[in-house]
Amino acid sequence: MTQAHEAAADQIGERAMTKYVYDFEEGSREMRNLLGGKGSGLAEMTRQLGSDVVPAGFVVTTEACVEYMRAGDEPPELEGEVTAALARLETKIGRKFGDPADPLLLSVRSGARESMPGMMDTVLNLGLTDESVLGLAGVTGNERFAWDSYRRFVQMFSNVVHGVPTERLEGEIARIKRERGVALDTELDVAALKELTAAFKAHFRTLTGEDFPQDPGMQLHQAMLAVFGSWGGARAIAYRRINQIPDDWGTAVNVQQMVFGNRGAHSCSGVAFSRDEVTGAPTPSGDFLINAQGEDVVSGVRNTSELSELAEVMPESYERLVEIMRKLERIYGDMQDTEFTIEEGRLYMLQTRNAKRPAQAAVRFAVDAVAEGLLDKAKAILTIDAAKLDALLHPTFDRNAKFEVLARGVAASPGAAKGTIVLSAPAAQKAAEAGEAVILVRPFTEAEDVAGFFAARGILTSEGGKASHAALVARGMGRPCVCGASALRIDLDEGTITVNGTVLRAGDQIAINGSTGEITTDDVTLVRPEIDENFQTVLGWADELRTLGVRANADVPADARRAHEFGAEGIGLCRTEHMFMAEDRQPKMRGMIMADTVEERRAWLEKLLPLQQADFEGLFEAMEGQKVAIRLLDPPLHEFLPSELELLEELRQVANTHPERMDGIHKELARVRQLSETNPMLGTRGCRLGILHPEIYETQVRAIMRAVKAVGKRTGKAPHCEVMIPLVGFTGELRRSRELVLATAASEGMEHGRDYVIGTMIELPRACAIADTLAKDVEFFSFGTNDLTQTTLGFSRDDIEGAIIPQYITDRIVTVSPFETIDTVGVGMLVRMAVEKGRAGNPSIELGICGEHGGDPKSIAFFNEVGLDYVSCSPFRVPIARVAAAQAAAQQAPSA
Amino acid sequence: MTQAHEAAADQIGERAMTKYVYDFEEGSREMRNLLGGKGSGLAEMTRQLGSDVVPAGFVVTTEACVEYMRAGDEPPELEGEVTAALARLETKIGRKFGDPADPLLLSVRSGARESMPGMMDTVLNLGLTDESVLGLAGVTGNERFAWDSYRRFVQMFSNVVHGVPTERLEGEIARIKRERGVALDTELDVAALKELTAAFKAHFRTLTGEDFPQDPGMQLHQAMLAVFGSWGGARAIAYRRINQIPDDWGTAVNVQQMVFGNRGAHSCSGVAFSRDEVTGAPTPSGDFLINAQGEDVVSGVRNTSELSELAEVMPESYERLVEIMRKLERIYGDMQDTEFTIEEGRLYMLQTRNAKRPAQAAVRFAVDAVAEGLLDKAKAILTIDAAKLDALLHPTFDRNAKFEVLARGVAASPGAAKGTIVLSAPAAQKAAEAGEAVILVRPFTEAEDVAGFFAARGILTSEGGKASHAALVARGMGRPCVCGASALRIDLDEGTITVNGTVLRAGDQIAINGSTGEITTDDVTLVRPEIDENFQTVLGWADELRTLGVRANADVPADARRAHEFGAEGIGLCRTEHMFMAEDRQPKMRGMIMADTVEERRAWLEKLLPLQQADFEGLFEAMEGQKVAIRLLDPPLHEFLPSELELLEELRQVANTHPERMDGIHKELARVRQLSETNPMLGTRGCRLGILHPEIYETQVRAIMRAVKAVGKRTGKAPHCEVMIPLVGFTGELRRSRELVLATAASEGMEHGRDYVIGTMIELPRACAIADTLAKDVEFFSFGTNDLTQTTLGFSRDDIEGAIIPQYITDRIVTVSPFETIDTVGVGMLVRMAVEKGRAGNPSIELGICGEHGGDPKSIAFFNEVGLDYVSCSPFRVPIARVAAAQAAAQQAPSA
Repeated sequence: MTQAHEAAADQIGERAMTKYVYDFEEGSREMRNLLGGKGSGLAEMTRQLGSDVVPAGFVVTTEACVEYMRAGDEPPELEGEVTAALARLETKIGRKFGDPADPLLLSVRSGARESMPGMMDTVLNLGLTDESVLGLAGVTGNERFAWDSYRRFVQMFSNVVHGVPTERLEGEIARIKRERGVALDTELDVAALKELTAAFKAHFRTLTGEDFPQDPGMQLHQAMLAVFGSWGGARAIAYRRINQIPDDWGTAVNVQQMVFGNRGAHSCSGVAFSRDEVTGAPTPSGDFLINAQGEDVVSGVRNTSELSELAEVMPESYERLVEIMRKLERIYGDMQDTEFTIEEGRLYMLQTRNAKRPAQAAVRFAVDAVAEGLLDKAKAILTIDAAKLDALLHPTFDRNAKFEVLARGVAASPGAAKGTIVLSAPAAQKAAEAGEAVILVRPFTEAEDVAGFFAARGILTSEGGKASHAALVARGMGRPCVCGASALRIDLDEGTITVNGTVLRAGDQIAINGSTGEITTDDVTLVRPEIDENFQTVLGWADELRTLGVRANADVPADARRAHEFGAEGIGLCRTEHMFMAEDRQPKMRGMIMADTVEERRAWLEKLLPLQQADFEGLFEAMEGQKVAIRLLDPPLHEFLPSELELLEELRQVANTHPERMDGIHKELARVRQLSETNPMLGTRGCRLGILHPEIYETQVRAIMRAVKAVGKRTGKAPHCEVMIPLVGFTGELRRSRELVLATAASEGMEHGRDYVIGTMIELPRACAIADTLAKDVEFFSFGTNDLTQTTLGFSRDDIEGAIIPQYITDRIVTVSPFETIDTVGVGMLVRMAVEKGRAGNPSIELGICGEHGGDPKSIAFFNEVGLDYVSCSPFRVPIARVAAAQAAAQQAPSA
Repeated sequence: MTQAHEAAADQIGERAMTKYVYDFEEGSREMRNLLGGKGSGLAEMTRQLGSDVVPAGFVVTTEACVEYMRAGDEPPELEGEVTAALARLETKIGRKFGDPADPLLLSVRSGARESMPGMMDTVLNLGLTDESVLGLAGVTGNERFAWDSYRRFVQMFSNVVHGVPTERLEGEIARIKRERGVALDTELDVAALKELTAAFKAHFRTLTGEDFPQDPGMQLHQAMLAVFGSWGGARAIAYRRINQIPDDWGTAVNVQQMVFGNRGAHSCSGVAFSRDEVTGAPTPSGDFLINAQGEDVVSGVRNTSELSELAEVMPESYERLVEIMRKLERIYGDMQDTEFTIEEGRLYMLQTRNAKRPAQAAVRFAVDAVAEGLLDKAKAILTIDAAKLDALLHPTFDRNAKFEVLARGVAASPGAAKGTIVLSAPAAQKAAEAGEAVILVRPFTEAEDVAGFFAARGILTSEGGKASHAALVARGMGRPCVCGASALRIDLDEGTITVNGTVLRAGDQIAINGSTGEITTDDVTLVRPEIDENFQTVLGWADELRTLGVRANADVPADARRAHEFGAEGIGLCRTEHMFMAEDRQPKMRGMIMADTVEERRAWLEKLLPLQQADFEGLFEAMEGQKVAIRLLDPPLHEFLPSELELLEELRQVANTHPERMDGIHKELARVRQLSETNPMLGTRGCRLGILHPEIYETQVRAIMRAVKAVGKRTGKAPHCEVMIPLVGFTGELRRSRELVLATAASEGMEHGRDYVIGTMIELPRACAIADTLAKDVEFFSFGTNDLTQTTLGFSRDDIEGAIIPQYITDRIVTVSPFETIDTVGVGMLVRMAVEKGRAGNPSIELGICGEHGGDPKSIAFFNEVGLDYVSCSPFRVPIARVAAAQAAAQQAPSA
């Protein structure tokens, strides 16, 4: 991301004469980057389904937006191109834009490469004026429709183009409904709609100081610039930040002839998925509203009908819709998410895109698509967002748990979550920063709540369905979500949630199950799920397709067993220090560090040896002969001692009560001070420790070798043991450490090459520079990309992640934390260099990576590309890594 | 060093059939690497002066030694080659090795590429046995000479080949002299010498369990292997470590016909320099001893005569010696350090090498050599060891100081030093580690004291002259040294130094002046000297020859003025934080950091602004229009606050006395904790600080710009101002910082490009990787090789330099601290990459380096090679850098 971003930044605005406007007929789905997702979808549908299904229109390109942002003004050619496109549109339709008698009305919608909820979305019915609303009433013979359309236009234009607050506008609607004593918008009559329109215009005037524009050309121009401007809005930026979308993509503007779902009982607007958007089951799903425009459906304000009901009320249109969606699935090779409108019995398609879906549905679709012959395995696996598979391994309610269901809602995004209630996005963010698990509870959500989604474990709303903003965003992020739990009465002013007489408040415990819609205040146990059959199928394909090995990082036998179950092909990193941290071992470890002489240190180490040996035996047994890479002690010794402050405090406490203990504490204090480091990350750790205190590494190697022998003898299957030397920067460090391993192992009767191999971590820039020389002395490299990132970027993770990275993301200096996705520019360059040099120095060397990047799909794609042999990640990310590795292989392979 | 070392390590021992033995006639001075310094010198002298001046002999090559070390045994071909060479030698001389009647005697001497005092040096008179000593007595008619030679041989062979301790052997000599009532060795008669020989042999038997070998062939073989073995001895390793000599060079063995300086009053041995070895004045100097062998001269045990006296006692030989040395100077193009023996009136040359000499002498020689037409300027400047020029800028006694001279000795190595007395090398090392300035005081010094030289500020001995071990090593290291201060009675057992009734002890203050030989216990002021005329001449040539610019790192006007005087061509680094550390500014800086709001912070910054501005004005004025690079604030803010422990202590103290102050301290404590970092080196510092708190950089830029204006106005000469942004790793960091500089400067009416330029530090591996992109946004790069070394090697200087680097040097993992001389393999690779990318991105970019490596001659050679435009170093190293830069240019230029 960063790479492309930085490279591209200088090229923008350096091209010659550009075409900024494309009619739908001129585009295709391949032109997504130029026309945006929505525009390219409309173009493709126009080509494939014909212009009788897709209302005519044109797209103003993303490049026009980029140029607008760069120059601070629209490109000079743009106005002429738009005018010409509009003229062509008028000719096609046979109506004039701005014709007071029979106006051509337009929808203006934004559309970036990727759908972005944070951006200005839609203005409908554009072109209506005080005069042409009368013409529309006349020509349609439907005065209520005309005024409903006009009030909607004035409302949307005021809000999204000029920022008149939603609350004021919705407040007017609520007031009029209250005054007229009606419950639904559809019950408002012409007079009410006229009053409403006038009220909206008054708000417009108050806020802008101008009258509502009566020139359709000006309306279009303002709307277009507003779409451009919304790309740079705070919410869009926040969304891009979370979703790692570059700032320089820009958005397109889609201008399209209006069709009307609000022309009465035979009209409707809806969203439809080609398959169930939650489960992936091959049944179309979605929501629609009779006599409504699209905004009513997605806003979640009115409760929608299930798509299945459309089969009953408009069976022909329903069949047609299903048939179109099947066709679109074949065209796109993916599950589709569409928008449609039925105007007086006639079906129009307004959008199609690959459906965002939870992991469960993604996996199901992939399996079904192969079974149906829609896709081959490689293409099918590429439809899955590997990063989201996490959700399938995330907790659900324990099947055997007994709990009282407080209420039920729509199961909108699968997985379960529990935490304390927060009632606003900022509160969620604050609590998350404090490390609290929270559930964000809202009546409904809007774009400005997105950051709160990110911070929360789960989302619960009282309004809206599966297509509501809350549901869409939660699924996009892999957060559990229950929507439309209408039993909840949420009073944000009072800060209360009332459910059948129970009153909950912020800070109370709550749990939701986004797979079932259940809500409870009981402290229900969450469990990690088994891998289901579909997921197993996909993982099986992944293993066929991928060339990259997948191992796990595991320090204790329990983790190793879990990793083995999840399909890890070995352990890529066992951190031996975690064994020393165990409570029963800490005193021995402290004794070792406090030792005054090498002899005394050896005596303590002798006590630790059998404990380590037992740990290693457990690991070897769990992995049943697979490779197990054990890293010799890495952290600085002071990590095992209490801090200076703690000891000073202890000293103060015992001064009066146990003066006899003061000597010991003083001694420990002196050692702590002696060992304390200014920058421990760059201090006496890794192989430096082993060179300073060879007896420590010697003991560890002895424990490893004895464990290898014991397990081989006990199980009859020799473990595959890899001894790994950390933090090497000089050939001399490696050679000295290697000699110690060889000598110690030999003294235990173990033979290098037969009983074990030796490798080194590559985690310093200098190690990358001398990788050719290092490679000659080892059987494998394991890239420690956490530390390599810290040194290459000069970023101490502990100090930078909280303070600097978020600021840098806000300031667009980075698009994602380099500790999450590998920095391909800096760190990646060094990895690439080390791979080339390493193979040059030792063609048979095995190359792996055991940093946290090993479980990140984007990083895995990079590791696959540079030609590593395996990645190693936490046990729970092993399935994700298997799929990501397969995707990387599928993407690199020449397409079939 | 490290680079060559690592690359070479794998190639050793992979060559085909090798010739291991060369007669002197077969060699030349070009074969130094193969034959060693001594061997190639003997070969060259044989070719140039004829075999009547150089006793015949042969050299066993350094490759034989390397092979011996590698295989643990001598190469199989070696024995045959030695036998053949010996046979040729016998033929030439007409005597047989081991002939009991008229034995051919040999000297066996080690000789690496570079002279190494730490190694086994010499065995003389080899070939004598109980039988042939009688033959020698017969054939020379000089029984005393024969027995003196034999006792010397037994003594040396026992000591250097078999490790019989010097004390025991010298103890026997002392006993016999005491018993016989004589003062000098030369006064011992034949009976005494026979008794001494027998006593030595008894010690030999006690220690080795064997009789002293009576087979000359075995004597030669054992001596040869002992030379090989001494290369791997602890003292040789220590010496190599200090002098950065690779371990894999090996040593040659020189086997040469004996000539005898101990054949009576017309014989002598001596060392002679072609010019004064202390001052460089064009008068030959040296020491000699009548009726002695070479070892007597260099051991410093007997007080020698000045070479000038030789002109009186043996005028012909003296003239011949002077003539030969002149010839050798022409051959080698350098001042020579020779060994000679006069045997019964006939002069033999036994060694020649370029003279190690103090900076003063080196500079004088270079100037004279050009005046004499011996060398051109480029060649002359290359004869200077730039690193040692430091001594010329090191302290001397203040000319106006009044002090009482305690005693006088030989002015053996120039410069003055003061410190507390230590009486052993280990004590010197220990004190130095504790940061204490010490003077090492010894009766005389030996090879095992070398590490103590390194640790001490100066060396004082009561015995020996200018050619003594102490004098040689001190000059080699650039340490002030006074030798042979015979008024000092040093009792090591008592730990006292008695001088005319005054008793000094370890820990007492002492000062020595190695340029005058003065010793005092007064606290005399040391002053830095002026640059003398010769040095000025050399610096003038340096400026003609060099292409690399030389700037200085200076934070305050006084340093800037000093830098300007020393010839700096600008300031390459002004660290603005040092200005904030000044006592009057700390409260303001603290206030700024403690500020709760940006407004409050700005208010404090406003107070700091005029102070910084005044500092900058001082710098600009001192540099008179030369370039001044000012780095914006770099260190983390917590460096300006007290530590948590200090505040806790303060809290405890005020709790009862000033409870009203507790709130303030608590607040400060909270801020300290908030700002505290695990690895501050990799934390919130550099441009990260400026991005988090733009108001800080803004204030600094404002102060800089106002200073530029003020000085321009006041002096009529516009400063050349360079604003430098530290710790950049991302293009976004640079752009954001740059924009802040541009905007702030513009608001002060200053124009980028006209009034100032902008650059960035390159001090992170990632910055090197994106140097092409970074280069587009700046006018200059300044490599911060301190930080780049820390990140590339993962070495926190604070934590590693004390604990790890010394161990690594001992373990031969590195040959020198990478903070002293740049690590060309890792850090150098990144610098090279950044230079290439930087120039590719911006061909007109200016490239400099401002780390401490900027004052290190070896590093300067590297920077010259990679094509930097300038180096910047501390003001006192500017003259060194000018010379080193000239040398680098001279070495790179095609030879004339």
